[in-house]
Amino acid sequence: MNTEELVELGRQLRVDSVRSAAAAGSGHPTSSMSAADLMAVLLANHLHYDFERPDHPGNDRFILSKGHASPLLYSAYKAAGVVDDEELLTFRRLGSRLEGHPTPRRLPWIETATGSLGQGLPVGVGIALAGKRLDRAAYRVWVLCGDSELAEGSVWEAAEHAGHEHLDNLIAVLDVNRLGQRGPTRHGHDLDAWARRFEAFGWHTVQVDGHDVDAVDRAYREAAVTRGRPTAVIARTLKGRGVADAEDREGLHGKPLQDSDGAVAELGGAGTLRVRVQEPPPTRSLHTVGTGQVELPRWKPGEQVATRDAFGRALAALGTARGEVVALDGEVGDSTRAEAFAKEHPERYFECYIAEQQMVAAAVGMATRGWLPYAVTFAAFLTRAYDFVRMASVSGSGINLVGSHAGVAIGRDGPSQMGLEDLAMMRAVHGSTVLYPCDANQTAQLVAATADLDGIRYLRTSRGGSEVLYGPDEEFPVGGCKVLRSSGRDRMTVVAAGVTVPEALAAADALDQEGIQVRVIDLYSVKPVDAATLRGAAEDTGCLLTVEDHHPEGGLGDAVLDAFTDGRPVPRLVRLAVRTMPGSAAPDEQLHAAGIDAESIAVAGRLLVEEAVVP
Amino acid sequence: MNTEELVELGRQLRVDSVRSAAAAGSGHPTSSMSAADLMAVLLANHLHYDFERPDHPGNDRFILSKGHASPLLYSAYKAAGVVDDEELLTFRRLGSRLEGHPTPRRLPWIETATGSLGQGLPVGVGIALAGKRLDRAAYRVWVLCGDSELAEGSVWEAAEHAGHEHLDNLIAVLDVNRLGQRGPTRHGHDLDAWARRFEAFGWHTVQVDGHDVDAVDRAYREAAVTRGRPTAVIARTLKGRGVADAEDREGLHGKPLQDSDGAVAELGGAGTLRVRVQEPPPTRSLHTVGTGQVELPRWKPGEQVATRDAFGRALAALGTARGEVVALDGEVGDSTRAEAFAKEHPERYFECYIAEQQMVAAAVGMATRGWLPYAVTFAAFLTRAYDFVRMASVSGSGINLVGSHAGVAIGRDGPSQMGLEDLAMMRAVHGSTVLYPCDANQTAQLVAATADLDGIRYLRTSRGGSEVLYGPDEEFPVGGCKVLRSSGRDRMTVVAAGVTVPEALAAADALDQEGIQVRVIDLYSVKPVDAATLRGAAEDTGCLLTVEDHHPEGGLGDAVLDAFTDGRPVPRLVRLAVRTMPGSAAPDEQLHAAGIDAESIAVAGRLLVEEAVVP
Repeated sequence: MNTEELVELGRQLRVDSVRSAAAAGSGHPTSSMSAADLMAVLLANHLHYDFERPDHPGNDRFILSKGHASPLLYSAYKAAGVVDDEELLTFRRLGSRLEGHPTPRRLPWIETATGSLGQGLPVGVGIALAGKRLDRAAYRVWVLCGDSELAEGSVWEAAEHAGHEHLDNLIAVLDVNRLGQRGPTRHGHDLDAWARRFEAFGWHTVQVDGHDVDAVDRAYREAAVTRGRPTAVIARTLKGRGVADAEDREGLHGKPLQDSDGAVAELGGAGTLRVRVQEPPPTRSLHTVGTGQVELPRWKPGEQVATRDAFGRALAALGTARGEVVALDGEVGDSTRAEAFAKEHPERYFECYIAEQQMVAAAVGMATRGWLPYAVTFAAFLTRAYDFVRMASVSGSGINLVGSHAGVAIGRDGPSQMGLEDLAMMRAVHGSTVLYPCDANQTAQLVAATADLDGIRYLRTSRGGSEVLYGPDEEFPVGGCKVLRSSGRDRMTVVAAGVTVPEALAAADALDQEGIQVRVIDLYSVKPVDAATLRGAAEDTGCLLTVEDHHPEGGLGDAVLDAFTDGRPVPRLVRLAVRTMPGSAAPDEQLHAAGIDAESIAVAGRLLVEEAVVP
Repeated sequence: MNTEELVELGRQLRVDSVRSAAAAGSGHPTSSMSAADLMAVLLANHLHYDFERPDHPGNDRFILSKGHASPLLYSAYKAAGVVDDEELLTFRRLGSRLEGHPTPRRLPWIETATGSLGQGLPVGVGIALAGKRLDRAAYRVWVLCGDSELAEGSVWEAAEHAGHEHLDNLIAVLDVNRLGQRGPTRHGHDLDAWARRFEAFGWHTVQVDGHDVDAVDRAYREAAVTRGRPTAVIARTLKGRGVADAEDREGLHGKPLQDSDGAVAELGGAGTLRVRVQEPPPTRSLHTVGTGQVELPRWKPGEQVATRDAFGRALAALGTARGEVVALDGEVGDSTRAEAFAKEHPERYFECYIAEQQMVAAAVGMATRGWLPYAVTFAAFLTRAYDFVRMASVSGSGINLVGSHAGVAIGRDGPSQMGLEDLAMMRAVHGSTVLYPCDANQTAQLVAATADLDGIRYLRTSRGGSEVLYGPDEEFPVGGCKVLRSSGRDRMTVVAAGVTVPEALAAADALDQEGIQVRVIDLYSVKPVDAATLRGAAEDTGCLLTVEDHHPEGGLGDAVLDAFTDGRPVPRLVRLAVRTMPGSAAPDEQLHAAGIDAESIAVAGRLLVEEAVVP
């Protein structure tokens, strides 16, 4: 498009942004208007994208990191001819594809859900990494960021990662409109401030008037030919641009314009421009889904193996069978054992350094390109990325998260390193799967199982060695459990998982010697739970005792109760969990101090079968 | 101390680091050795600190952000004469004050728990802000950081905040030993790389050989006299410094030295230096605890008020009564209504921009100085700071977190803005309190109540207006609940909180017309729960129905079950919660779609009283 057409397109995008927000009675027209010219030039002259084939391997990728500017995005879709005016005006209504903040659950052209700020660039880094190292395709990744969101540390994790990896296929377009939600940003229109920061992290920068379409066009061209570095196009813009009552004014964030009709008139009325977006180049997809059978590692019952070790070896084996598997780790691969994958598949291993937000975001980005990511760190440190996990779920992203060093069982390192909230955190994520194996063969089987699930899959592993309980051919369906002890005379059921399984077995032995028969269930699938088996155990034995290396809230105990919250009779229940703040101690001392070892289980079990209350 | 003594002190700190890790059989001696000279010079010549009075208002503050180097910290305490050699060798043992990673729960000289990397500097920013703007004292805040942890985005949130606030009382000492846990860091010994980054964020930087004690001494002096900017002392060091087999070698992270006795001998044997740490200057504490009665805002029953509005006004009132209350917000104060506090107490309001990690860390830092922080943003965005909340709990920190815009009830903005995991996340934090008011007077009372609690206090507020149900003099003890409907013929109990309380009342009305009497409980205190009242309701009515604007895991339903997990008989129970991924829609459409509105409650309630299973 020439200058005149670009100006007209920017105008039309503003008009449609104003109209859609007016129709909805809410939304962010002023934030859309500042970026309209930036979007117009990108759509018309730079983006290569086949809207008919959003999965085209050569498509450029666009992320609206400032997701609240969704009216602009939908207006661009209208200009591209894939959303009509009628649909545009359904913005934010029940059932509309045009949500308040864009999500790929609804629209095929959206890479990732945004709306939690500072996430678009890290996800873009993940896609750009995939482009360089996995797809080896020429596509570019364009990320439109607001200036307010640059306060998020995740943006600088992304900046560091992109600079260090020389991601010249990544272009951040910064819409510096100087106004945040409740007032001016830290740096206002000081474009140099942003340039200094991005340059310090190894980026090329171009400063531009974001309403001069020719200058923007040149800036994008410069970004496209820059080699060896990502580029930040830093654009001076005005919020509410083009409408005198709104332009560069405070107090108008996140509201339809007061006089929308007047604004549309002032902007020149509705437009009818249609953009012919450039086709992507013919591109071969390197992404192959392996068909080979996974040759999982095998251990003999009785061996001592840590589940983290089993995880590492199983992931490496999965990677051999399936070429789409990639692994990411937060600079602790020697501890999490992700390094086993790194050794066998270095080309599909991504060192994310100690930047868990970027790690999870990169996984989300790679998943958009069809790769199957496993992002791995200590369970405790996945808390750092919870907002990214939450948003991955909003995206409907399919990623695997693996948290090692779960619970007090890690021993002497102390509470900062102990995952004690991870089950609660991961269970609360919509559509998640939560798995917590207790032995090596089980771990390996579950690693293989996660590959074919949807949504967020979380696997919890343990630091210390434990006895292999199951044979290598035993199967562990997701949503199942294993009844390890059972008789017709069971007077209670102990439900354990991970490190508490051997404790439960030892307690059952001790109680058996006292004449109290105990059923023992290994609830390796914490979400979904095997409701049928739990209900059967409740009917058979009358009471349940859950024991977990986790805080009492949101973990195994609550998962068991999930089977009984539909109105059916509920068994009497005792929940053993970590109720104190642990210190440093040996693993067995920790389990004892927390009251989740065999002795504690036996004590509580005796009270429970006597129908006493357990203090 | 002169050069010779400083060298000797550094040597002694290394020796004691090696010895304590050897005694423990675990720990991080090599990470301690790289920073030993940096610590020696700081302790001997720069820190002003009265170990007898850790709460001295003039004390400098020291944070070991690289918390795994705890052997160095404890060795420094020994050199300062506050830990003896016998205690030093209890490192990492059960019951020892010397945990694997330092925590203020155990030792009075520690400001904040570290061990999750990248948190020390943000907390240091909070203390430095307190020093400048609240305490108005001359103390300095010294933060010793590792180079690996500079990959965390939270460090750059802190860098941005400190630069922008001109925190010249903050000094970051970067121990650039070039080796992370599993290998080289991104930038190795390229000190310029770090200097460029910190300078871009407005810091003064000094590069130095971290093993040249005179150079370090000069660098600290330069930092101390630098005005208007924080300083980063960027020190080139060697991991394992001083022991040939360990120095600058990979693969030795987090392990005692193989030949500890040999290493001690090579380092020159045990030392006996005692450091006389400089006294802090006489300082008057500005920190005053208000004694005035809080004059809370009052609303009339029947008024329509959003709980976020009530929160804002109540916090402002609390701030008037109590001078130690401070508020922080993540650039959404107009939405969360924290701006009501800002207007009345601008000197105690801290704009944290969109940097939730820094916001929570600043709250933790201010709390160390005796201030009473309220950190406020959307409930959804507190997930961004979960690791900081977790670590605040490890610290035993007393902070208030307020999350607005909870649940699907926000309406059209869509799932990215909806707090649907926040109750699970906050309940799982050790020692936390979780409150969820349903009306304005209740909100105000709970805001006042949080001021006198310990630990992490979380208050959940709602976006939309709701009818005031309670009179302004009604009391709402933490750990209590309100029985809103009750009769001798109740056949079930509905437990609701927040936006589902009016829905529950409407459902009870509908069921009453059908001859089904329903007890209704407003469970505003989600943690701790009022176990006695819930148990009484269970006994009286036989079954419970919980209804919450939150995902089913870890929220209100699980909180209610907390009252029944000690082996006592459990009532039949149905849990209504948000089980789908919401889109954009009006608030009432959202509640209906999620199955948590009055109609849904009535449908499920009918099934429950008929002893049917609720699908």
